[in-house]
Amino acid sequence: MNKPNAQQQQKKKVRTAITPTRDEDFPIWYQNVIKAADMAENSPVRGSMVIKPYGFALWENVQRALDDMIKDADVQNAYFPLLIPLEFISREAEHVEGFAKECAVVTHHRLEQNADGKLVPAEGAKLEDPYVIRPTSETIIGDSMSKWINSYRDLPLKLNQWCNVMRWEMRTRLFLRTAEFLWQEGHNAFGSAEEAHEDAMKMLGIYERLYREYLAMPGIAGEKTADERFPGANNTYTYESMMQDGKALQACTSHDLGQNFAKSSDIQFQNQNGEMQYAYTTSWGLSTRSIGGLIMTHADDDGMVMPPKVAPYHAVILPIIRDDATKGKILEACEKLKEQMRSIGLRVQIDASDRRTPDKMWDSIKKGVPLRIEIGAREVDDGTLTHVRRDLGRESKTTCATAEFMGNVQAILDDIQAQLYSKAEAFQDNRINAVSSIEQVGEFYKEGGVGFVSLDSAHLGSEALDKIMKKYSLTPRCLPFEDEGKTVIIAKSY
Amino acid sequence: MNKPNAQQQQKKKVRTAITPTRDEDFPIWYQNVIKAADMAENSPVRGSMVIKPYGFALWENVQRALDDMIKDADVQNAYFPLLIPLEFISREAEHVEGFAKECAVVTHHRLEQNADGKLVPAEGAKLEDPYVIRPTSETIIGDSMSKWINSYRDLPLKLNQWCNVMRWEMRTRLFLRTAEFLWQEGHNAFGSAEEAHEDAMKMLGIYERLYREYLAMPGIAGEKTADERFPGANNTYTYESMMQDGKALQACTSHDLGQNFAKSSDIQFQNQNGEMQYAYTTSWGLSTRSIGGLIMTHADDDGMVMPPKVAPYHAVILPIIRDDATKGKILEACEKLKEQMRSIGLRVQIDASDRRTPDKMWDSIKKGVPLRIEIGAREVDDGTLTHVRRDLGRESKTTCATAEFMGNVQAILDDIQAQLYSKAEAFQDNRINAVSSIEQVGEFYKEGGVGFVSLDSAHLGSEALDKIMKKYSLTPRCLPFEDEGKTVIIAKSY
Repeated sequence: MNKPNAQQQQKKKVRTAITPTRDEDFPIWYQNVIKAADMAENSPVRGSMVIKPYGFALWENVQRALDDMIKDADVQNAYFPLLIPLEFISREAEHVEGFAKECAVVTHHRLEQNADGKLVPAEGAKLEDPYVIRPTSETIIGDSMSKWINSYRDLPLKLNQWCNVMRWEMRTRLFLRTAEFLWQEGHNAFGSAEEAHEDAMKMLGIYERLYREYLAMPGIAGEKTADERFPGANNTYTYESMMQDGKALQACTSHDLGQNFAKSSDIQFQNQNGEMQYAYTTSWGLSTRSIGGLIMTHADDDGMVMPPKVAPYHAVILPIIRDDATKGKILEACEKLKEQMRSIGLRVQIDASDRRTPDKMWDSIKKGVPLRIEIGAREVDDGTLTHVRRDLGRESKTTCATAEFMGNVQAILDDIQAQLYSKAEAFQDNRINAVSSIEQVGEFYKEGGVGFVSLDSAHLGSEALDKIMKKYSLTPRCLPFEDEGKTVIIAKSY
Repeated sequence: MNKPNAQQQQKKKVRTAITPTRDEDFPIWYQNVIKAADMAENSPVRGSMVIKPYGFALWENVQRALDDMIKDADVQNAYFPLLIPLEFISREAEHVEGFAKECAVVTHHRLEQNADGKLVPAEGAKLEDPYVIRPTSETIIGDSMSKWINSYRDLPLKLNQWCNVMRWEMRTRLFLRTAEFLWQEGHNAFGSAEEAHEDAMKMLGIYERLYREYLAMPGIAGEKTADERFPGANNTYTYESMMQDGKALQACTSHDLGQNFAKSSDIQFQNQNGEMQYAYTTSWGLSTRSIGGLIMTHADDDGMVMPPKVAPYHAVILPIIRDDATKGKILEACEKLKEQMRSIGLRVQIDASDRRTPDKMWDSIKKGVPLRIEIGAREVDDGTLTHVRRDLGRESKTTCATAEFMGNVQAILDDIQAQLYSKAEAFQDNRINAVSSIEQVGEFYKEGGVGFVSLDSAHLGSEALDKIMKKYSLTPRCLPFEDEGKTVIIAKSY
């Protein structure tokens, strides 16, 4: 009989709030983290999810941060129709190839009851021209731009919309790949190729800032290879972030569309010389997929870990009540602390439910609330409180004077934010493997390598590389800007 | 030959920015105000509109104000699927009658190119169970509630979503009635009939506050008559606002659904006695229709008039440049003022385009910007500025020291907000006609009466009244709360 060795025994003893753990089964762990944090769930509509309040509050914070940056870039929000005429989709040939395939198609505008009393599409209400639900809005926004842009004076025109889109995905995963998802899509038009190029880079820079500063997600900014570009784009820029299983997540994209969509949508303007010419457009989008990335970057075997800047709540206060005599004063102290914290702009909740304290504690851990604060009778008498960081766990448990805590709390939250980023960055940096031959790409993944490989981009297009990539389900993720196109990052991806 | 009399001559001389005027053709005036203010336009999708940046900025301000109030009422935002299975719609019989008729139906999930190369729904991708695009979400949210609610501890459950919905309208008008529109829909569940009733009233109260305090729109809060209720509701509460043509706009609704939807969606919970019982639900919504109401309440024959609290910009600064020598210092003064105003939380734009000053001036008038500020060389030298209120026009033109203006500007904006409300309230109060018989209802409208009539509600249900209402296209708008159900307001409506 084999006896478990010391390390295995050690491992066995660690009980985690989430089972299986990341190491045991990453995809199931991911689902269970979402469930335990009460963020989202599958819906009765095939491939569509319900975003629950706690998950939606996170998305709202991401939205707010990004929307402010978009407005600072002089982009204006607007709203365009959900439905797109088929004829519009047909206009851009490459776009058709890339998007037309799997769309929700609206063919009728009325229901009626059939002989069995069942509701069915009414025969008499069949649309002569069906519509698709937008998979993206380049074509319909292009149609408006063609009317709004007449002269160089109308440029640049910079538009953004926050909306839902649909792509009929067959294999879906909460947040990462759903038939319906939420996003923002920006659509800008310029008078020159240079401005469009600069804009596509600028908007990618905004995403990069959102990811690094708010979601605490490191990543590699770069250019997509030709095969991986958005259908109809001259160039696609991306931010590829490494998840804890070593796979890449394309966290956002920004496209330089050149004159391709301007030509198919007839977006022309009179330039300063009085000549008519086509505009140059860009488009750029970030979706609820970012939430999936956030989870796979920061969550651990005890559940979600929220970066403070986008956390639904910065802190949860747990009243530790042992008898009725002290209940009143404990709740009062909790309320007072909540108000104090809110007054300095922090998002705080008191968990005053009648559940057991350990259940409340584990709930805040699984939800990934950055700070847990406990106040019992003794703390009230002493004018103190006890606080624990989610990222560091029980070893960070500290009891201190309330006034001292109030003086430090913002710094603590800033430190959590910074530590989460550093930890994820170290994880990523340690798993980017520079290799010097195509063979080494194969060897790395054959041996169960976790992470990205970085290879001389001159190998792109070679049959040998394509074969290896196919064998191990790899794709070229991007040509990192920092290597000026000389290298390509290759990885498994979401 | 008849000579025009003095008054007619006077009238002829007044040139308005919008033609026709309100008196000449209210519906065309309405369209032209929207066009002149660049707020929205029809799209190539039948019945759907494009909300342009200036109109969308207004909607965002309405959203922000309402969202804050909704969150203060402890309601949590979430997101539910766009598509609804037909089977869900079938569950609530009255609801089917009221909503199933005109919906966008999704029947296929893929497109393909036919023999002519045209994109068509793919035959092989027909959905076994079609979906409708949500006309409202009671049924799909009810499905989630049935899973999330198990015990009285799970109640109340208060949810809201901001989203797009579709109702296949045949006759559409920008903002007022479009196939696709934007709204928020709240869906709350409680353990008792009393709580649900109170909640429906409370949420209507929040809408009323939004309308009175932010949109400066007076109205009559009350209960809908049985025939005018939401399909499946026990009671519908409404806020009916009078437009400048005397018609009523149903500005929002709040429904007490009793146990009707809980029964059809199986929302049951174990109560404190351990027994299973159905929950009591409410739903409440406010849409982009509110923007149509805002326009028809405040706009005049020169265009839009924005209440400061929701105006996209509080003020526009026009640099009055007569020569290149003073251009620099004028623009610098404008920039400085903009920054000063922004630093106290005001939304300000400089119109530095190369258009003629009168064009810029008229643009700000047609857009309804509350304050127009003019700064020329003389103002810069004197440390002054000139400002004009949109609501009072050129008679309010004032030149004063910049420091004095900065000390007064918030008070000026508050006064504009208050004056707009008072003016609309006087308009409405003067046009609510108490009548004492059914005949008088007919007489009022026969003589071209503009406004609402108020009648003893005991007449409701009488054939004579129905006949009169049919003849003049009238409907009972509500039983005002302030009359405790004793009177009914009757009017033409949008």
